[in-house]
Amino acid sequence: MRILLVGAGGVGDAIAKIAARRSFYELIVVSDYDEGRAKRTVDWVRARHGDDVASRFTTAQIDASDPDRVAAVAREHGATHVMNAVEPKFVTSIFAGALAAGADYLDMAMSLSEPHPTDPYAETGVKLGDDQFAQASDWQQAGRLALVGIGVEPGLSDVFARYAADHLFSEIDELGTRDGANLVVRDEEGNEIFAPSFSIWTTIEECLNPPVIWEEDKGWYTTPPFSEPETFDFPAGIGPVECVNVEHEEVLLMPRWVDAKRVTFKYGLGDEFINVLKTLHLLGLDSTTPLRVRSANGPAEVAPRDVVAAALPDPASIGPRMTGKTCAGLWVTGTGKDGNPREVYLYHVSDNEWTMAEYEAQCVVWQTALNPVVALELLSDGTWQGTGVLGPEAFDAVPFLELMKKPEAEGGYGQEWHLEERTPK
Amino acid sequence: MRILLVGAGGVGDAIAKIAARRSFYELIVVSDYDEGRAKRTVDWVRARHGDDVASRFTTAQIDASDPDRVAAVAREHGATHVMNAVEPKFVTSIFAGALAAGADYLDMAMSLSEPHPTDPYAETGVKLGDDQFAQASDWQQAGRLALVGIGVEPGLSDVFARYAADHLFSEIDELGTRDGANLVVRDEEGNEIFAPSFSIWTTIEECLNPPVIWEEDKGWYTTPPFSEPETFDFPAGIGPVECVNVEHEEVLLMPRWVDAKRVTFKYGLGDEFINVLKTLHLLGLDSTTPLRVRSANGPAEVAPRDVVAAALPDPASIGPRMTGKTCAGLWVTGTGKDGNPREVYLYHVSDNEWTMAEYEAQCVVWQTALNPVVALELLSDGTWQGTGVLGPEAFDAVPFLELMKKPEAEGGYGQEWHLEERTPK
Repeated sequence: MRILLVGAGGVGDAIAKIAARRSFYELIVVSDYDEGRAKRTVDWVRARHGDDVASRFTTAQIDASDPDRVAAVAREHGATHVMNAVEPKFVTSIFAGALAAGADYLDMAMSLSEPHPTDPYAETGVKLGDDQFAQASDWQQAGRLALVGIGVEPGLSDVFARYAADHLFSEIDELGTRDGANLVVRDEEGNEIFAPSFSIWTTIEECLNPPVIWEEDKGWYTTPPFSEPETFDFPAGIGPVECVNVEHEEVLLMPRWVDAKRVTFKYGLGDEFINVLKTLHLLGLDSTTPLRVRSANGPAEVAPRDVVAAALPDPASIGPRMTGKTCAGLWVTGTGKDGNPREVYLYHVSDNEWTMAEYEAQCVVWQTALNPVVALELLSDGTWQGTGVLGPEAFDAVPFLELMKKPEAEGGYGQEWHLEERTPK
Repeated sequence: MRILLVGAGGVGDAIAKIAARRSFYELIVVSDYDEGRAKRTVDWVRARHGDDVASRFTTAQIDASDPDRVAAVAREHGATHVMNAVEPKFVTSIFAGALAAGADYLDMAMSLSEPHPTDPYAETGVKLGDDQFAQASDWQQAGRLALVGIGVEPGLSDVFARYAADHLFSEIDELGTRDGANLVVRDEEGNEIFAPSFSIWTTIEECLNPPVIWEEDKGWYTTPPFSEPETFDFPAGIGPVECVNVEHEEVLLMPRWVDAKRVTFKYGLGDEFINVLKTLHLLGLDSTTPLRVRSANGPAEVAPRDVVAAALPDPASIGPRMTGKTCAGLWVTGTGKDGNPREVYLYHVSDNEWTMAEYEAQCVVWQTALNPVVALELLSDGTWQGTGVLGPEAFDAVPFLELMKKPEAEGGYGQEWHLEERTPK
């Protein structure tokens, strides 16, 4: 397996760092628009793991917006797999470049949605991933696999959905991804600051788009942003967090492979963050349409959302000043294998103190990066195989969850996931 | 009198339009960084008032950040007066350019403040206008006048302060400028939108800087932003509006010429606007320090605050979609000439429907522009005269208020101002 990793931002950097402890691949090409960033990642691998491990890494400059350039870099390095670790606006170009190069493809976010032109808060328009699924037959005909949405959410959440359907439930009422955290970031003086732990560009995209819900008898439909607020009680000391509906890939993926009456995604944003997002929208600062603005070198055309992202601390850089844990999981309700009502929360917790000590990566970014590495390992030995455009729930969940949980000393990743039985309402 | 008007934005445009009905000057040079904007103003004057009036106007390109260029344009046109109508960050360069060219100078906002380095929310650092007052002796020695802060607030409010001290009160407890409005802006579909009626750049500067207060026994001191909220009941159907302390020139000007125990400025921002300003600050989007951001033509260095301004509707353009009135005034408490407690609110109301119909200018911008034209007329015939750096309260208020109020048919501006007696608490 020869992997072209596109993007050495927070998640891409953590993918390389996690993979550095594994041996299932021959080469990882860490590529970025700014090759210096890719070099920093490989320098870390060399410093931490030595020259032998680092010899299986190299770097490249890449323009992720150009399919031809993606294909050229993939061909140049004989990539068998293209691992997309950049912002979702580049999904379509990397997806096309991988297919052109004859490589398999993985991503952690799917091609972007477009709201319904006349009724955006009730009906779907172009849905997340529609552009990719529309090309499924091309991938099948080429005998190539595009494994889409294999981060933590989507990703691990989808693996949990497959697991719940196969091993825990005879009938599922709701597959509800629920994400919450108790992370706090402080400045040098120790004062709490506003510093989102994940790409604000992506968070704005997710949270201001109309949230999508799936129901057995209605199919996919949308609501206004921040709908159906619900206090969800998270484990591991995080406690109750206010969650709202957010547009997310799980809702588009799970119903394609798993039977359920309802599929939702709710994000524990909290009041402050919801207010920030609403205010950005009120002012038009969420927009990706470039505006003409004065700059030191004359008028420049910049997208307000890019400026918002640039004004905030880089999520990859805040790890040292952050404390707390993040929890990603799937809340499942329905009828158990024994015919009785059942309610479980399947989850994985990432502790910033631990991810910083072990990987110098902050916990949200690290938790996202873990899952594609596990998936790549399962693909490398044929445990997982397939062609076409497939979500994580199209594969057997058990080998994934076993490899993830098994201690490192026994060849696994040593990452506990948990099943919490809850009392059905 | 030959006037170099620097800036053909909302206020500069309205100054030219108001002046077009008067005959006290020989020439007005409308200048702007974008000369096309200046030409649009003069085209309006020609279309509305004919070639004769328009022949007393010309245009020029100017870079307000360059004192030499300001001086060169002033000399080229033999300007006797430089009227600054651009954002306050250009005050120092235009101020210097005017003096270099041997012209008198007027502005509507003073040189910017800098917070106290260690105790910003209790002590003043560099105060509004400090840079200008530091040069007062240069202006005196040159025999030239810099009339600073002669918009509506500061400006008319300061004229009111002089008037109250000379004609209404024997002793003043508080000179409290209070500004409120009931303006609403709608989009094409008739939905209310967020569209500040005044430069957001200046509003951010005013509202996020530590508000300054003056007290007889403490001198100038500061508080945290949005301090001392107070519901003030505005006249003309506007009604009660939540007002908070805001850094403003009146507090720096009035105590230099008028005796009072306390001088404050409170702005009727309302909850939504306060939340917007707090959020911009939380995200660092109020910053004027350029950030590196991607643009269509490669990385650009842009200031987040400039992007916020560019993302919002131009305040000069929203007039047709705006309804309501804005009220500028001075609330004075103390002891009347008869020795009894007295409380008055001296104010002027600007109605957007009227300013749009008469001047195609929105009411906040128009109300600001009115006062420097009145002042220029008083300077042109020697009714007002002086040298050095002087505020509006350094001059006799009566001729200003009379010229302003006198009907147009009798040679005045036909702008009623009002004295409302209130019951002292």
